[in-house]
Amino acid sequence: MRALFFDGREARVAERPQPPLAAGEVRVRMALAGICNTDLEITRGYLGFRGVLGHEGVGAVVEGPPAWRGRRVVAEINFACRGCETCARGLARHCPRRRVMGIAGADGAFAEELVVPVENLHAVPDPVGDEAAVFCEPLAAAYEVLEQVRVEPGQRCLVLGDGKLGLLVAQVLDTAGARVLALGRHPEKLAILARRGIETGLADARAETGFELVVEATGSAEGVRRAIAAVRPRGTLVLKSTLAEHPQLDLAPLVIHEVTLVGSRCGPFAPALAALASGAVDVRSLVSDRLPLARADAALRRAAEPGVLKVLVDCG
Amino acid sequence: MRALFFDGREARVAERPQPPLAAGEVRVRMALAGICNTDLEITRGYLGFRGVLGHEGVGAVVEGPPAWRGRRVVAEINFACRGCETCARGLARHCPRRRVMGIAGADGAFAEELVVPVENLHAVPDPVGDEAAVFCEPLAAAYEVLEQVRVEPGQRCLVLGDGKLGLLVAQVLDTAGARVLALGRHPEKLAILARRGIETGLADARAETGFELVVEATGSAEGVRRAIAAVRPRGTLVLKSTLAEHPQLDLAPLVIHEVTLVGSRCGPFAPALAALASGAVDVRSLVSDRLPLARADAALRRAAEPGVLKVLVDCG
Repeated sequence: MRALFFDGREARVAERPQPPLAAGEVRVRMALAGICNTDLEITRGYLGFRGVLGHEGVGAVVEGPPAWRGRRVVAEINFACRGCETCARGLARHCPRRRVMGIAGADGAFAEELVVPVENLHAVPDPVGDEAAVFCEPLAAAYEVLEQVRVEPGQRCLVLGDGKLGLLVAQVLDTAGARVLALGRHPEKLAILARRGIETGLADARAETGFELVVEATGSAEGVRRAIAAVRPRGTLVLKSTLAEHPQLDLAPLVIHEVTLVGSRCGPFAPALAALASGAVDVRSLVSDRLPLARADAALRRAAEPGVLKVLVDCG
Repeated sequence: MRALFFDGREARVAERPQPPLAAGEVRVRMALAGICNTDLEITRGYLGFRGVLGHEGVGAVVEGPPAWRGRRVVAEINFACRGCETCARGLARHCPRRRVMGIAGADGAFAEELVVPVENLHAVPDPVGDEAAVFCEPLAAAYEVLEQVRVEPGQRCLVLGDGKLGLLVAQVLDTAGARVLALGRHPEKLAILARRGIETGLADARAETGFELVVEATGSAEGVRRAIAAVRPRGTLVLKSTLAEHPQLDLAPLVIHEVTLVGSRCGPFAPALAALASGAVDVRSLVSDRLPLARADAALRRAAEPGVLKVLVDCG
């Protein structure tokens, strides 16, 4: 089969062997997959992954239990061992022995076929088209904030960063009834939120303070510093993006103001699918480009260009 | 009156005017005061404070409302405005207009007399001697951890740092039923905990991982890095000490493991006084030295020596 394979130095479209199917797994014929910043970081050496890239995708089950065959699905990306203490605690997404689709020890979604554990599958409701369903994984990551932090209706929340994740988090907080201010550096990206009635502003023009909840989604050291300055005493700061750099930080304000900082990663698929079905979150406006699998390497380069949001790869 | 005054360059014992008494304040004749690392940091320029140092003390009310006169007291150190939105939210310890005893805008405890708002007073129960009562403020800071974090009986907790604060936090977690491991670099300090049945170890000999709760009380960048490595997925890391340095940190593990980091500062006096009254926490073993107010500058130097724990100043 054809797939976007990263050999540790270069990501290129190549012919790969059909992945074998183990017990408890299904084979998915991929329809559409999305490029995430993590994919770009992996091609720069992050996490030392070798294999087929991609962890956001939608497809149809072609081999596996009869109940699943033919169904359109999305799949959670953490393949847990289901046998360790962490899994027993209900934290399968944190299983220390987990493989992660397209990120660690498991081939990913930029391929004609994908093999995943059956327990990772979620059926995609009919009203959710492929171009929406492909956002399920990053939207679930945005919903993770609501799993971790109590958001009161009317609560003032600040979202820093107008990349893909920031735009999704701002909308998710908005659907939860929060009064969101989203700050970024790209008027055309912020306009996606403004059309949903969310307050936006240019980050460099403002020095915000006094927020009960701040979500850092810039992935930059400066964003973290701004976030620390913006949160009010006893407030909460959610770190939503991983930083490749190791920033130098003054932690004293976290102690003096007794701030709670919450690291936040993968999230629940169910509320994400529900939001995609109801249209509560606009993901279509985030699509910058769509290329065929044969040009997936070009799609990666396109996704790395400034100002580009989501680049999709047609796998069918 | 005589007091230990810091003029921005040097801390020395000097004759100071008797502090005036405003409405709602009481005058306390100080008996005993304790030196905290924050006092040492202030003399190195931290926070830009000028005035009488000291924020840990016990004394007797000599002027103020009749109900308080003659009573032995300790006083909370944050003097809140009681009129702002933060105070209205019940967060007087975080009032943005607060003065802080011996730290910001208010003279402190290394003096013959101290003036504090009456609402900051706590009566000291008779069984609690001065040498125990003087630990109320730092012990309250240790109890703050229990206010912020749920600690289950039998829960494994790691305390990093065997300074004064680490020794108090380890004991407080122990009284809450946690199974505490305290790591430090001073066998003679760790022995104080071992005598209470708390497991201890030398930090450099161990690389701990997998703790649900980790309390960082070393005040060092290395301690913060060790703490991040030691906390398990979805676990909690309490930052108990302020760092003068700005450490370079890899924040990615906080995101990947969805760790909650909680900044922790001043705490509630009531449980601290109760623990001092019952003897649940050993503070006497933490006293390294006791000097008269006339030699308070020497006491500061003594407190800065390696291996020294609490140095007390006799103010009477």
